[in-house]
Amino acid sequence: MPEFLKLIPVEQALQILLSQLYVKVIAERIATINSRGRVTAEPICTPLPLPSFPRSTVDGYAVRAEDTFGASESLPVYLRVIGEILMGSSPGFNINPGEAGLIHTGGMLPETCNAVVMIEYTQPVGGEVVEILRPVAVGENIIKVGEDIRVGEEVIPQGTRIRPAEIGGLAAMGFVELAVAKKPIIGIISTGDEVVPPDRKILPGQVWDINSYSLSALLDQAGAFPKRYGVFPDQESILEAVCLSAIDECDALIITAGSSASARDLTAGVINKLGSPGVLVHGVNIKPGKPTILALCNQKVVIGLPGNPVSALVIANLFVIPVVEALLGMTNVAFHPKVIARLLINIPSLAGREDWVPAKLISSLGEMQVDPIFSKSNLIFSLVRANCMIRVPADATGLSAGELVEVHLFMLE
Amino acid sequence: MPEFLKLIPVEQALQILLSQLYVKVIAERIATINSRGRVTAEPICTPLPLPSFPRSTVDGYAVRAEDTFGASESLPVYLRVIGEILMGSSPGFNINPGEAGLIHTGGMLPETCNAVVMIEYTQPVGGEVVEILRPVAVGENIIKVGEDIRVGEEVIPQGTRIRPAEIGGLAAMGFVELAVAKKPIIGIISTGDEVVPPDRKILPGQVWDINSYSLSALLDQAGAFPKRYGVFPDQESILEAVCLSAIDECDALIITAGSSASARDLTAGVINKLGSPGVLVHGVNIKPGKPTILALCNQKVVIGLPGNPVSALVIANLFVIPVVEALLGMTNVAFHPKVIARLLINIPSLAGREDWVPAKLISSLGEMQVDPIFSKSNLIFSLVRANCMIRVPADATGLSAGELVEVHLFMLE
Repeated sequence: MPEFLKLIPVEQALQILLSQLYVKVIAERIATINSRGRVTAEPICTPLPLPSFPRSTVDGYAVRAEDTFGASESLPVYLRVIGEILMGSSPGFNINPGEAGLIHTGGMLPETCNAVVMIEYTQPVGGEVVEILRPVAVGENIIKVGEDIRVGEEVIPQGTRIRPAEIGGLAAMGFVELAVAKKPIIGIISTGDEVVPPDRKILPGQVWDINSYSLSALLDQAGAFPKRYGVFPDQESILEAVCLSAIDECDALIITAGSSASARDLTAGVINKLGSPGVLVHGVNIKPGKPTILALCNQKVVIGLPGNPVSALVIANLFVIPVVEALLGMTNVAFHPKVIARLLINIPSLAGREDWVPAKLISSLGEMQVDPIFSKSNLIFSLVRANCMIRVPADATGLSAGELVEVHLFMLE
Repeated sequence: MPEFLKLIPVEQALQILLSQLYVKVIAERIATINSRGRVTAEPICTPLPLPSFPRSTVDGYAVRAEDTFGASESLPVYLRVIGEILMGSSPGFNINPGEAGLIHTGGMLPETCNAVVMIEYTQPVGGEVVEILRPVAVGENIIKVGEDIRVGEEVIPQGTRIRPAEIGGLAAMGFVELAVAKKPIIGIISTGDEVVPPDRKILPGQVWDINSYSLSALLDQAGAFPKRYGVFPDQESILEAVCLSAIDECDALIITAGSSASARDLTAGVINKLGSPGVLVHGVNIKPGKPTILALCNQKVVIGLPGNPVSALVIANLFVIPVVEALLGMTNVAFHPKVIARLLINIPSLAGREDWVPAKLISSLGEMQVDPIFSKSNLIFSLVRANCMIRVPADATGLSAGELVEVHLFMLE
């Protein structure tokens, strides 16, 4: 039996983990202005209707529509202008039959009006009279109270990631603070006898720790709080000790294994000692990232990532980000749009295995094209040069140049 | 002549502004770990080759390839195992003819070796001998020094936005700090007699200030430092005073006008007093956002945005973000991928005018579909419900349901 048949497919692996995870979101109140990227911990409902007063949508004259019926350029209707409605104020007057009030876009309509004539279709005559050159229908050029949003309507659901638009929406309701999910603390432990923190010198045979850095940045971007524990040698007792103290301090734990097979086996053994049920998935049907470990230890997620920095970052995008989103109480897995682009060179792949290939998406001749980046040693710089990933589905034996392929943007930002 | 023929097309308007802008990036050194979202202020070159020592790409035995020629399962080659190359160390020995050394993925190759036999194609015999069951070619399963990246090679160009991948790349070179562009300070001034800061109570006829909030968040996201000056009434002397002091303190200035026509005219007049050449573009052929003002006052960009919060945020995405990117020294305008999706309902549009319609991109039946969000009063909540914008080109008279249309993701995050 080929090995990939024993490995778990990507989506199924994630489902096995998420379906057993019980999330309890802890809320904290923060200032709206600082909430970008955070996730709402309660549904946001409007305390007032929007608009909260009847408004004009144009510059013109507030009128009673019935006064304008039959108006035309050759036979205008004459209305008496009884005043101007100042921006930001209640109108100081009502409009009686035969009267009109100068009004600006966003101005508050007097109660007795039911339409606004655009300034373009009017003609002032002396100081106090205006010619109306076109009729308006009842309701024309105005918005009624609550026409956009009714009182109490849910405008931002719980579990929503706050963008500039949501911050604007909160300001529109006068909400200067809101309840968001506390950032989950995700511990990062790097292992590998050959791995050295980047602030130390390296000797021949050693490499600098990439994963603590790249994964920290990714977790920060996803709205989690990364806690780096440093680099540890491939020794069971040392790794077990740091993992036990980290899982106590964190909401979830990422362990990047050394690159040798023995180092990877060590990780699974240690994870199983951190709590039950322990390892749920060991080996995912994906390249890169086959030795990925997904575990749940006393309701805390533990993920064992491959030591190779490209594998680690790709797998973190596919597995760690959905876990962070779940811990933040995002009810739907975030929407990641796919782009369809024309493949510039062939991608070989084994049937039965899902491949993710870093690539460069470019806009050319009115269509999107995508250029795969191949790198012998899966060096991190293949991701630096990439702005997307191409997914080669498990049932494909590679993709051919000229084909339209599915591109994922998760490396882009 | 229809009005839109007098208005400047979107791309041309941006070009008029950017082509006259002289940018001087100020660099500051910061820690790599905190550099996500910042922009490199110098080209990053490798101080060492990568890999910096010859490495094995598999678990197996380091050998002289010529010793394995002719090996097969029926007629294996026997090599003497003279030791194990420990991860993170120089090998303590050389491999002489007839010898092999146990090596792990990422381990350092002894100088006299030129290949690695995968562990799967070997068989230990007693303690000190290994059977080699397949030959390897010279160079097989190893990476030579500098094979990925040569010394001094530029790996991250100047003007690159730092993502998790770049942070990993910096760590790979042992760079714990780097020079990034200082965040440009962008002043935000809201105007409008009807506009009240969200932390105060509103009276009938008044609305809360949305734009200071949403634009701050957008600028922060783009890597700028937003400086909010608050809300000011539509009075020339007051507006002029605050703008003069703000343009002195900031690298660029955004003024959101009140929604009435007179308030918008006021803004242009004040901008022209802030420095020369002053207003470059007044009126862009776009909906929403027609009254947009683009100006350069003594080499500082000043942008007058419409007061309507949807217009302000859309126009800020189209004009303010490229300005921020230019001020950060990003040499190419950032790549914004387009998604092609099937339109679910008709979008009417005037020929000759470029329309941007907020919409919801959804993934359905294997294809991307897009559902426009129409809102009578252009309320901010139409953007809250949106995750993309549909661009209706100037030469189209609307788009029809069932068509494949161009979708832009800039509202998504």
